[in-house]
Amino acid sequence: MKIAILGGTGSIGEGLALRWAVKHEVFVGSRKLEKALASTDKYRKILEESGDTCTITGCVNPDAVDRADVVVLSVPYEHVSSTIETIKPYLRDQIIISIVVPMKKNGHFLYAPPESGCAAMEIQGLLPEGVKLVSAFHNVSAKKLADINNKLDMDVFICGDNEEANNVVSDLVKDIPGLNPMMAGPLEVSCMVESITPLLVNLAKFTKKKHLGIKSV
Amino acid sequence: MKIAILGGTGSIGEGLALRWAVKHEVFVGSRKLEKALASTDKYRKILEESGDTCTITGCVNPDAVDRADVVVLSVPYEHVSSTIETIKPYLRDQIIISIVVPMKKNGHFLYAPPESGCAAMEIQGLLPEGVKLVSAFHNVSAKKLADINNKLDMDVFICGDNEEANNVVSDLVKDIPGLNPMMAGPLEVSCMVESITPLLVNLAKFTKKKHLGIKSV
Repeated sequence: MKIAILGGTGSIGEGLALRWAVKHEVFVGSRKLEKALASTDKYRKILEESGDTCTITGCVNPDAVDRADVVVLSVPYEHVSSTIETIKPYLRDQIIISIVVPMKKNGHFLYAPPESGCAAMEIQGLLPEGVKLVSAFHNVSAKKLADINNKLDMDVFICGDNEEANNVVSDLVKDIPGLNPMMAGPLEVSCMVESITPLLVNLAKFTKKKHLGIKSV
Repeated sequence: MKIAILGGTGSIGEGLALRWAVKHEVFVGSRKLEKALASTDKYRKILEESGDTCTITGCVNPDAVDRADVVVLSVPYEHVSSTIETIKPYLRDQIIISIVVPMKKNGHFLYAPPESGCAAMEIQGLLPEGVKLVSAFHNVSAKKLADINNKLDMDVFICGDNEEANNVVSDLVKDIPGLNPMMAGPLEVSCMVESITPLLVNLAKFTKKKHLGIKSV
């Protein structure tokens, strides 16, 4: 599968690129080509050093989207609207995975949903018809995901209105050993999943346990 | 410690009563005395059958609050305001633990916070000064908690503005083997913890895994 990761140069984008590039064709997208190429070189080196072969290409966001079947939107909430504007001409029938979280900082982090209730519902309103949106990966530790030697054992909560797209994302989750996909409901419940990201950051801060993810028990 | 559990006749109240009554003095509160007494008889029988000695008394909500150091508020969101009205004359400097979750049902469940941002912030506005509010236990499976033979292994996320009260609640969590207290931040972040309750109900529904709780990993 051809996967574009927008915001693929940092945070959770890095982990997804590293974990998927051994099985899929990954396009690391950025607003700046040099940044995308630098990250791609870094990821390729990490994977090759561990003996993996990978297919990974750096490009600007619109190029990444144009070449992809699945597009991961892992840019900061503030950049969502402008990012979607630049990629809009290249959106056809791709599946978009939103990892976006609107939050504000006040010593600790607080989930700050827009009027539509959550980032996912707002993003859906910005996307052309035909594009299928799925919300996922908010409750995964970016750091643990990016450490390819880390044996993962986390759930990934998935929200979406299109069953076929949900199943594709569920399979992509399963492609990462140790991640377990769990359907959490339609897109509107994404607020309950997005808010786990700032919760995990706070828990790490207050308990001094770093890089937390979530598992249902 | 003397603990009143309002809404102690059902759901998570049952589990807390059963788990704490072997170590603390528990007052199971209800709007109706007969209901409180019936539940108390049931809980006493369960504990005695498993060879435990317990201290557990059934009473109406105001009596339970009057006799307690810690008051667990585990009534449905719709009954919070009226419940607080009836117990107000008996509130002095107790610690209140809110397990309250405002949610609506639309096939699935959706977290439906009030204007103040979360149930905990709204409840704080209803309480007299001197009473210390802590938000906790939203991410625990009520069913597993109530099954005293179930070996628990879950986190309990705690939010609150009063450090002393947070610590008391943290110790009460530790009194239940297998539950691990984790500070999640001040009371205002309770929205991110309260919303886990409807999320867990949805996950159980869509994945056919029953009685889920949460653990950070």
